[in-house]
Amino acid sequence: MTEKTKDSAKLDSKRVYSGRIINVDVDRVRFPNGKEGELEIVRHPGASAVVPFLSDPASDNPQILLLRQYRYAAERYIYEIPAGKLDGNEDPELCARRELREETGMEAETIEHLTTIYTTPGFTDERIHLFMATGVSRGGDATLEHDEFVEPEPTTLSDALHMIATGKIVDSKTVCALLFVAGFRSGL
Amino acid sequence: MTEKTKDSAKLDSKRVYSGRIINVDVDRVRFPNGKEGELEIVRHPGASAVVPFLSDPASDNPQILLLRQYRYAAERYIYEIPAGKLDGNEDPELCARRELREETGMEAETIEHLTTIYTTPGFTDERIHLFMATGVSRGGDATLEHDEFVEPEPTTLSDALHMIATGKIVDSKTVCALLFVAGFRSGL
Repeated sequence: MTEKTKDSAKLDSKRVYSGRIINVDVDRVRFPNGKEGELEIVRHPGASAVVPFLSDPASDNPQILLLRQYRYAAERYIYEIPAGKLDGNEDPELCARRELREETGMEAETIEHLTTIYTTPGFTDERIHLFMATGVSRGGDATLEHDEFVEPEPTTLSDALHMIATGKIVDSKTVCALLFVAGFRSGL
Repeated sequence: MTEKTKDSAKLDSKRVYSGRIINVDVDRVRFPNGKEGELEIVRHPGASAVVPFLSDPASDNPQILLLRQYRYAAERYIYEIPAGKLDGNEDPELCARRELREETGMEAETIEHLTTIYTTPGFTDERIHLFMATGVSRGGDATLEHDEFVEPEPTTLSDALHMIATGKIVDSKTVCALLFVAGFRSGL
């Protein structure tokens, strides 16, 4: 199997782990300089994440919704914005709306794409599509999966920024999305 | 093996893949609600990353150093700040200095910790320690590994922010670190 990309070629690929959420491949690759080597890569379907604004984002210090979420990888609860994996070929915006509904019971009038990030491109192809949601109101109850432990935590944007500055928010998609909306809103 | 954490317990752990950079475990876990389940987790040694300031960070529009780096996971070159894995029990600040030297040939007078992020805590324990470096000057030549393809790209902070706003910078550690220094510098 040879699959050309702009700057390299995949010469061979061996699936070394097939999991529930991730797969791991060891690929034999021709690098941009023509040399060959092996790379291990975690294949992930991608995800969407959304900053839900509970009040007008143009107001002085708008209210947003954070989640306290239990993360086994971090061995504790950490603060995040609502997020979750794309379901097959799901449209990223629909995924953001679905995850907002499932994790918080909230519906959004308007959803706007901020940017799309590679979480850690040294070893995974995972991308997360970041959105902000406005006109957010309760549509029903949250419907969590058996291994999701999530508590809504409304806060102000300025308090959330303080939590980033002091290391209380450490999740990269959450740091990216909050600093993105706050920074570009303030004219960075 | 039972290993207690604050909110859950590891009941059992099976290493399903041992790699060059990552290992993959499937852990049997008791969740905060007392129920049990299996989680797959990519174990990573952690990393440091650094924003190198080529001019006074307090000046109007300081110069920074980005890298164009080939990433197989992204199938292209993307823009990043200098970064790399912790070497065993290496101190994160020393790692940031070492990676700056190896990837760019630059030495820093001062290095300051910004924050530490979980890149994607849904499936990996990887954390990246983010720094900014000032008083940066050439100390020698870059010494790249055989599978590192890196080109230095000096730019201004405001151009870099524009690249974030327009989706030209998509690497999460780079977005976090640049918006962090720019945002809190401008009084967010």
